[in-house]
Amino acid sequence: MSASELVRPWRGKSPEQRVAERREQLLDAALEVFATQGFHRSRVRDVCRQAGLTERYFYESFAGKEALLIALAERIVADLLAAAAPGIALVERDLDAAVDAASGAVVRSLTDDPRRARILFVEVVGVSREIEDQRRAIIGGLAGVVRAAAAQAFGPWVLESVETELISRAVIGAAQELLVAHVRGELPLDQDDLIVNFGRVFRQAGPIVAAMAGQQDIERAGSRT
Amino acid sequence: MSASELVRPWRGKSPEQRVAERREQLLDAALEVFATQGFHRSRVRDVCRQAGLTERYFYESFAGKEALLIALAERIVADLLAAAAPGIALVERDLDAAVDAASGAVVRSLTDDPRRARILFVEVVGVSREIEDQRRAIIGGLAGVVRAAAAQAFGPWVLESVETELISRAVIGAAQELLVAHVRGELPLDQDDLIVNFGRVFRQAGPIVAAMAGQQDIERAGSRT
Repeated sequence: MSASELVRPWRGKSPEQRVAERREQLLDAALEVFATQGFHRSRVRDVCRQAGLTERYFYESFAGKEALLIALAERIVADLLAAAAPGIALVERDLDAAVDAASGAVVRSLTDDPRRARILFVEVVGVSREIEDQRRAIIGGLAGVVRAAAAQAFGPWVLESVETELISRAVIGAAQELLVAHVRGELPLDQDDLIVNFGRVFRQAGPIVAAMAGQQDIERAGSRT
Repeated sequence: MSASELVRPWRGKSPEQRVAERREQLLDAALEVFATQGFHRSRVRDVCRQAGLTERYFYESFAGKEALLIALAERIVADLLAAAAPGIALVERDLDAAVDAASGAVVRSLTDDPRRARILFVEVVGVSREIEDQRRAIIGGLAGVVRAAAAQAFGPWVLESVETELISRAVIGAAQELLVAHVRGELPLDQDDLIVNFGRVFRQAGPIVAAMAGQQDIERAGSRT
């Protein structure tokens, strides 16, 4: 037996890979447990049982169930942004096509598996001051994505304008409200309705920002005289 | 001393009036205590001390601090609706004037005393499943006010259209997001910025609903042929 064989990873995986795999198992388990039992009624042991792992492995990756909830929310957001990216990439060429593609992708990413929307729009709300801060940071980040896309469509001045920050926030707030109402069953909305109205929300921002671009040109011309 | 003098109310007030006055004192105290200490860190005794009343008088009006929080949120919403009413009343004659007047009134009602906005957009969020249900009912009610105003402006068909329900929800979601970001100090927004952008959010809905009215006429004409 050679020296290299002696240090080869167990079952062909490095310890780091196995930690990462167990972390994924715990995130999958949390998606099921938190979405079906509700976060407040879920215990670390429920998640471990669902994952088929002992609590020792839980604390290897997470400080507690709040840290797991945040990691889960971040994964859901990362997945929806990855799903939206090809649509957003169209923004310079065709704003409407970009909005349609990204709206469809985001809504599907959150509602094809409705547990995802439930985690992000119900379970993560108001758990604690720390988690509220994280949730608000996520919303700020999503508004930032909208703003960056608007900058690609309308020009880099968008990133320096407080007004476009407000518009991005308003758009995210509107989109979020539709999803919350959908997840909570407050409205008779199917996925297609949601996609159409999601697109409508984002499309509203275009003409406002475009009008601001015109206004900007006027202000620049004014400042030169 | 006559019989009527014997049953006259203490200090000229009936017992019911005194209960109502103490309830108001407790609501005022809760506004201060919950907004400055945070709801989670506030105790019934803190509110009583602020109100200058014993706990016996607290439980005369409220089952506990959650019930007080809900009553406070409802009072804040009732006050903002009362403030918005004269603006909303203009909706049939002049939609833009109505939006401007109502936006200014709502933002001022919530931010002239910033504790009001803090209660409604921070402290009331995610406290418990019951309070979340109440909070969502408030949001649904506000969307209903927007929808009723749209019906006055565009016709009673608005009240039967799921689309206008979605638009009202989206508008409320957008407006709420601006207020939350403002209350939490996430954006460099003064009250005037807030009013302008609040108005912008509500103004967006007008042309969409107007276009739907046109679409409705086409569909009606189609169904007649």
